[in-house]
Amino acid sequence: MAQSPAWALDPRLARDSVMIGDLTLARVLMMNDANYPWLILVPRQVGAVEIIDLDDEQQARLMDEIATLSHVLKDVTRCDKLNIAAIGNVVAQLHVHIVARRRDDVAWPRPVWGAAPRPYEASELSRFIARIRQEVAFG
Amino acid sequence: MAQSPAWALDPRLARDSVMIGDLTLARVLMMNDANYPWLILVPRQVGAVEIIDLDDEQQARLMDEIATLSHVLKDVTRCDKLNIAAIGNVVAQLHVHIVARRRDDVAWPRPVWGAAPRPYEASELSRFIARIRQEVAFG
Repeated sequence: MAQSPAWALDPRLARDSVMIGDLTLARVLMMNDANYPWLILVPRQVGAVEIIDLDDEQQARLMDEIATLSHVLKDVTRCDKLNIAAIGNVVAQLHVHIVARRRDDVAWPRPVWGAAPRPYEASELSRFIARIRQEVAFG
Repeated sequence: MAQSPAWALDPRLARDSVMIGDLTLARVLMMNDANYPWLILVPRQVGAVEIIDLDDEQQARLMDEIATLSHVLKDVTRCDKLNIAAIGNVVAQLHVHIVARRRDDVAWPRPVWGAAPRPYEASELSRFIARIRQEVAFG
């Protein structure tokens, strides 16, 4: 585990995403990839890399926050499928992807990881973030 | 939701994997891909496609079973990273991948989905399944 007492978002996650808000356990980010509505939950726990680095209560909370964002993303996007994953081969800091997939998106049926991103236009990004914020009770 | 009252494993999952045992919520499979130690949890809930198709208690149970298998897989393989994912773009039946990754495996750092599998030799398969069964209390 890291020595530092203060949690900080991994710089690579920060660079590739926009912050939406904080839930009890995790920070919620939106990936800056207009190809798919794509949220990321990052538990604010120093040194956490694997889900099993969280204690039982935090794991339960993570599942609740995954479910909350899954419902919101499904309602807002009317997607065909959610893809949920904790991979972390490149960025070690524990983060959980929640991606809304459509059968006509550019990568379907392949996973989105490793595909080239298409940055949002600013207005599109703001609209999407506002829409998510309407639906989620952030702290 | 499906009309049938009886849960059955998706035929494609059955074809690509070997059954290890049943936990309270989910069936545990091992993918027949010797490139990576790779378990799959399949909740025995008729019609479940998304994690949020499970009720709160089942979601909590799923997290517990993910954590149990994560610990076992990490202990048995001494892997560098776990990859955990519910994708389901090809096989709709809800299933959660738990993959033990090494920095020297054939796909690292890319995800494993979509990569060509390498079937186990029978003896290697039996050994791995026996090892997992030693560590998990199956019903």
